Amino acid sequence: GDGRMGVANNFTGDLVFSSRIRIAFSASGETDGGLSFGGSIRADNAGGGEGGTAGSVFIEGAFGKLSMGDVDSAAEAAVGDVSGVGYQLAGRQESIYIGGPATAALYEYSAGDLSVYLGAGQQETGNDSVSVGLAYSFGNFGVSAGYETNDSVGAAPDTATNVDHIILGATAAFGDATLKVIHGMADFDGGDADQTAVSLDYVMGATTITAMYYDESEFGALGSGEGFGLGVAYDLGGGATLKAGYISDETDGATEDGFDLGINMSF
Amino acid sequence: GDGRMGVANNFTGDLVFSSRIRIAFSASGETDGGLSFGGSIRADNAGGGEGGTAGSVFIEGAFGKLSMGDVDSAAEAAVGDVSGVGYQLAGRQESIYIGGPATAALYEYSAGDLSVYLGAGQQETGNDSVSVGLAYSFGNFGVSAGYETNDSVGAAPDTATNVDHIILGATAAFGDATLKVIHGMADFDGGDADQTAVSLDYVMGATTITAMYYDESEFGALGSGEGFGLGVAYDLGGGATLKAGYISDETDGATEDGFDLGINMSF
Amino acid sequence: GDGRMGVANNFTGDLVFSSRIRIAFSASGETDGGLSFGGSIRADNAGGGEGGTAGSVFIEGAFGKLSMGDVDSAAEAAVGDVSGVGYQLAGRQESIYIGGPATAALYEYSAGDLSVYLGAGQQETGNDSVSVGLAYSFGNFGVSAGYETNDSVGAAPDTATNVDHIILGATAAFGDATLKVIHGMADFDGGDADQTAVSLDYVMGATTITAMYYDESEFGALGSGEGFGLGVAYDLGGGATLKAGYISDETDGATEDGFDLGINMSF
Repeated sequence: GDGRMGVANNFTGDLVFSSRIRIAFSASGETDGGLSFGGSIRADNAGGGEGGTAGSVFIEGAFGKLSMGDVDSAAEAAVGDVSGVGYQLAGRQESIYIGGPATAALYEYSAGDLSVYLGAGQQETGNDSVSVGLAYSFGNFGVSAGYETNDSVGAAPDTATNVDHIILGATAAFGDATLKVIHGMADFDGGDADQTAVSLDYVMGATTITAMYYDESEFGALGSGEGFGLGVAYDLGGGATLKAGYISDETDGATEDGFDLGINMSF
Repeated sequence: GDGRMGVANNFTGDLVFSSRIRIAFSASGETDGGLSFGGSIRADNAGGGEGGTAGSVFIEGAFGKLSMGDVDSAAEAAVGDVSGVGYQLAGRQESIYIGGPATAALYEYSAGDLSVYLGAGQQETGNDSVSVGLAYSFGNFGVSAGYETNDSVGAAPDTATNVDHIILGATAAFGDATLKVIHGMADFDGGDADQTAVSLDYVMGATTITAMYYDESEFGALGSGEGFGLGVAYDLGGGATLKAGYISDETDGATEDGFDLGINMSF
Repeated sequence: GDGRMGVANNFTGDLVFSSRIRIAFSASGETDGGLSFGGSIRADNAGGGEGGTAGSVFIEGAFGKLSMGDVDSAAEAAVGDVSGVGYQLAGRQESIYIGGPATAALYEYSAGDLSVYLGAGQQETGNDSVSVGLAYSFGNFGVSAGYETNDSVGAAPDTATNVDHIILGATAAFGDATLKVIHGMADFDGGDADQTAVSLDYVMGATTITAMYYDESEFGALGSGEGFGLGVAYDLGGGATLKAGYISDETDGATEDGFDLGINMSF
């Protein structure tokens, strides 16, 4: 599980206490034929796990790994997100993915440095979504790409009923510095929307400094506007990390600042 | 806990992903005098466990076992259900029992091949329910009987406020085949309603083939109509079973077909 | 976790089954620098734990212990409550504390027989609450005191928007008998309200007999009226205790009696 405690302004100006504790369960087994199977869920969303909309189950073998439940789209599994800041600041730097609703399915297969992902959201009338992703790493570098399409995105710029999305990612490690760049290009019923996210992590012993930038302003209500963040994390050891973060965000012309200071715990 | 994943049409015609994961807790202790006590609950209905409407607690000794919570009526504990089909097809073959609402109580006592059950639903105004059950096994055969009465069944044929229910069960194993038959006779304020359920399981090595039939059509909204099912289960070992099932159901003249294919996991 | 089962009238006159089971999680770790951290939550309120309104997390070292989440006010942590009766009778003897809402923070520091507490409720507009508490024990005796203030108490006598509360406690053990006395004095926007609670526990081997008295009638809807209770507990060993309790309560001139008989389980 994980815990966190500290103080934050949550973009509202008033400093408040912010803490949480979550317990995670992970279960697994092996068939006589050598297939692995299992699943994971947290106590706090166990109700969703019973209904197939939270957590996930999997079966894995030489053929790869097939998961079902609240799984990422193949594009998200391949490309992921840039680094965030703070001990609990909401993930505004996280890129937008349009994978369909749970119960979703995700298939993963890795061969050496290459990983392939195939995904599908719940197949219901008016909401067919499929996705594909690739990730390749070579030495200190990595590139990834994903494509996903969804017939019915919940919120969107205007009244889009079909969205196609291509998203590309790259990571590069230069000594103690790691740069991540993600760029996505979506087509909403013919209208275009691009997104970009960049992060730079710099490690100095137990301390990691992170700077990040994101621009999701063309995605309207689906996105987080445009902004940047700065953060510092100090590894206390044993699973505890002291973190501080600052984000400056501009959405629809309104600017707001968020900051927090606290401890993340892993147990 | 348990998990499952696969595809199913859920009687609607569209094939959808269907998965879930549930974590189960079981706790127990022993008093200085040698009594066992404990209880069980799942993470997903832990809220009901706190309120006494899910899970159960027990105390057990030479006197038998007394459980309280979301426990079966004595009739259900003694007679049970015939075998179902599929990895997640809803339990239409399950017989109807009218035990009262939780917090309920169940007392069990076994002496050799004979088991005795006494039950009572929550004792509230207008909803007094009590039940009694017997089960006896001899060699490859077993018989069971239950009686239950409830002053206020939630849904029912018409506006029944008092229901009496006698239910009988028999099982017989012939080599690799096991036959189960259940027949229930209920009296709804003077109107009769009968139910019947039959299943045949045939084991061939790791494979089990199941055929079942049910008729609950006289129970109206309480029941599942009339239908039959066919299923096959293949034990993968380690707690995983591959299952496929098909059910044809007729309720109020409308016919619908359900089928599924997936994996059940136990961990 | 814990469980309980038995019968109770819950002050309504009808005897009902009352049971529950709860699973508790406790997690902890240690930083490289020797600080302890961790947290606790139950399965049934895990959703609140995710949101910081149930359970708690902490970090502890030579500086003391800082907790955040659904923590007591400093006054409650220092003074606590007198003993209750029964296996599940609602805690009418519990004193009223006006600590602010979660996410709250509590700091504790102990030096020998002296413990110091500082607390604060969630700091939101119109609801600032802070508290302080002290507890000191010497031999078979203990004294405690707390002060707490809250700008916006939810329910209250009339329309109080600011409450100050001083509460004092004392415990004394005379051989097998333990006496606890608590007295609180609150100021609701200038109007006074006092509360008193007393309990006497007497241990005879595995049996504990408890008598208690409480008067919270001046606290209106915040309190439990005035009443007394008698209880007996028999330790079965292994974490199971057989308990019976009786409470006679008078609230706004109406008298009601509650009693229960059941088993408490700890596992």
